[in-house]
Amino acid sequence: MKNEILFKCNYSNNDAKNELYSKIVEERNYIGYYNLPEQNIDEILEFADDFDDSIENIVVLGIGGSSLGAKAIYEFLRPVKSLKRKLYFFESTDPLNIASTLKELDINKSHFLIISKSGSTVETISIFKYIYAPNPDANSYTFITDRDSNLDKFAKSIGSKRLYLPSNVGGRFSVLSPVGLIPLALCGVDIKSLLSGAKDVSDSFFKKQDIYEPIMNKAHYYAKHSRCYIINCTFAYTETLKYFSEWYVQLWGESLGKKQKNAVCNTGLTPIGLIGPKDQHSFLQLIMEGKTDKTVTFIKVANFEHELYIPPITLKHLESLDILNNVPFHKLINMQSDSVLEALKDTEDIPLDEIIIDRVDENSIGSLIYYYELLTSLVGQLLGVNTYDQPGVEAGKIILKDKLTKV
Amino acid sequence: MKNEILFKCNYSNNDAKNELYSKIVEERNYIGYYNLPEQNIDEILEFADDFDDSIENIVVLGIGGSSLGAKAIYEFLRPVKSLKRKLYFFESTDPLNIASTLKELDINKSHFLIISKSGSTVETISIFKYIYAPNPDANSYTFITDRDSNLDKFAKSIGSKRLYLPSNVGGRFSVLSPVGLIPLALCGVDIKSLLSGAKDVSDSFFKKQDIYEPIMNKAHYYAKHSRCYIINCTFAYTETLKYFSEWYVQLWGESLGKKQKNAVCNTGLTPIGLIGPKDQHSFLQLIMEGKTDKTVTFIKVANFEHELYIPPITLKHLESLDILNNVPFHKLINMQSDSVLEALKDTEDIPLDEIIIDRVDENSIGSLIYYYELLTSLVGQLLGVNTYDQPGVEAGKIILKDKLTKV
Repeated sequence: MKNEILFKCNYSNNDAKNELYSKIVEERNYIGYYNLPEQNIDEILEFADDFDDSIENIVVLGIGGSSLGAKAIYEFLRPVKSLKRKLYFFESTDPLNIASTLKELDINKSHFLIISKSGSTVETISIFKYIYAPNPDANSYTFITDRDSNLDKFAKSIGSKRLYLPSNVGGRFSVLSPVGLIPLALCGVDIKSLLSGAKDVSDSFFKKQDIYEPIMNKAHYYAKHSRCYIINCTFAYTETLKYFSEWYVQLWGESLGKKQKNAVCNTGLTPIGLIGPKDQHSFLQLIMEGKTDKTVTFIKVANFEHELYIPPITLKHLESLDILNNVPFHKLINMQSDSVLEALKDTEDIPLDEIIIDRVDENSIGSLIYYYELLTSLVGQLLGVNTYDQPGVEAGKIILKDKLTKV
Repeated sequence: MKNEILFKCNYSNNDAKNELYSKIVEERNYIGYYNLPEQNIDEILEFADDFDDSIENIVVLGIGGSSLGAKAIYEFLRPVKSLKRKLYFFESTDPLNIASTLKELDINKSHFLIISKSGSTVETISIFKYIYAPNPDANSYTFITDRDSNLDKFAKSIGSKRLYLPSNVGGRFSVLSPVGLIPLALCGVDIKSLLSGAKDVSDSFFKKQDIYEPIMNKAHYYAKHSRCYIINCTFAYTETLKYFSEWYVQLWGESLGKKQKNAVCNTGLTPIGLIGPKDQHSFLQLIMEGKTDKTVTFIKVANFEHELYIPPITLKHLESLDILNNVPFHKLINMQSDSVLEALKDTEDIPLDEIIIDRVDENSIGSLIYYYELLTSLVGQLLGVNTYDQPGVEAGKIILKDKLTKV
């Protein structure tokens, strides 16, 4: 992948840059996600290889960091790849959603992955109870959780298979751990290639190669201007990245929306995931003529490898649109991206950059994911927040527990 | 539906209120969407009644305002209603998306609705050419556009059925016009009930009944504080409103993100559509501890009418979660909404309100849609923008046309 920054960067202070780089190198010693591209995946590959061929559906019971990553990658690849099994998600307590998802499933051909880092996620455990009570065969379930969590102990007690995510890998940074790799491997996703895409970006950054300058400059600009450019939009010109947007929103919002260390100030940057050309007919007007409080990152696919041409027919009264004739759609969509980028550039007020991924494959999405994780860590350092916790969500959980106790 | 405002409103100036109300009453004379609940739908009902029973799929070729509304309503109702036909959308030039949507369709059992107000939308016409070239049977297509647009003339020339949206109804306000009603009626949605839900809110507002005070106060607060509370989140506790969120984002962003009349200032409010409880595990942290620049509207369903209970089983080591036992999911999800609302209330910094819709049915979604259209018009008036145009999206279109001409 390539990243080109189109706004003026003035992060020329090499000492500051080196200090930031050193902090990330140091973080790498105790924050686990950095090293996931190098993990040993033999156990996962073996688990997937030996898996029961009669199972057609892999069903994830998980929410937030336990589902968004695998969903992003699965939905990205689905239009181009004949996958081995279908992947389903239960990620809501909405009874209509639970009922309609269940209706689609043949339970006897399904295997359930219960994914919860803490092991006590209310949504996940309530749905698990609902499914498990009438289907108590321990072999139908695999548990992915922190070692020694109560969920781990429960799984052990019934004799189900258990897999762990490293304890120093947070939920929203866990897509390249067993949390994402297990469901994806079971569906036939090439997880080796996924990790190798991530490793490309990791190597490039830590060896100060191609990605180093643009990502450092971008992080610095975003943090420095976090009080005026408070919204960071991604504008991906492919429907395949729709769920990647949701993953990005969690990663960015939950990591950076924090009280600052040693200060009473709340800070944060608001993520918005747009999809082109659809959102040209929706959010674009607000970017063009709304407040100039947004940055925009265009994401393009270099090679769609799918040759669909607009047929050279003339429609009476619509002759002016003959300019579309013989244009391949993959070229049209990238021209649309370029046109909007140029139009926004002309405003001179909106910080823009462009990411180009090679193709719709495992390697590319692995790179894109690692790039955004790294960018989040960099901006978190510069904003002076703890990128890896989420204390703000506890209050609601405590109130809910109280309400449930009183039922 | 009910709307309760939980922040302190000080819109006590009755003259100002009456002036705003008068402006809306005046707008109603020339802005068409206000009166859609009272339109005559005989032609649409007849069209749907007489429709070929062998057609199983209704396929919308449209983007932005031509697709988001019908999609929002269709996806809202789908989990509760056995619909007569399936609804598909082509709303991207992504070749992978076009190919994979086509793969799902039996063309011989499909009818295509080509929806474009202007009649020259690049995305819609290019996909139409792609489908029409090998399938040139005029009976397979119905066109919904402005009367006398070039698309209307083309449709006439090939002898296809045409339907019109009133010329004074803008794309993003067109869901209750034939743009939304035709695809929905063909799928068996009760469009009478949909309009009657909208009419409830319209009557309530224009007769200064229940909805009048909360919606006026909310609009006033949002506009007055548009420089500090720049982001307006909806937080809907049901998966069924997922695509309603996308409709809301277009409506709000494209209507309000504007240069102000008689001023050089850009203004606007940024919409974000959240879904609970999922986004408790994503965006919530940013609301709780990020910058206090967001308002939040909780949307709850009063009656899910779907009795799913969490079974009363005890999981070893997870006994603390026995508090979930026997709780119905519809109660749990609303308790989750209440808990997060209370937690946010405790911060005292975040303007909150709550909308409760009765149930997942046509009447409720009709009300919710009209409420948001009305709120948009009110805020637009108070921000001093033209709520109904979208001049900012033209620049990119011109650049694209130029690029296409040079291909």
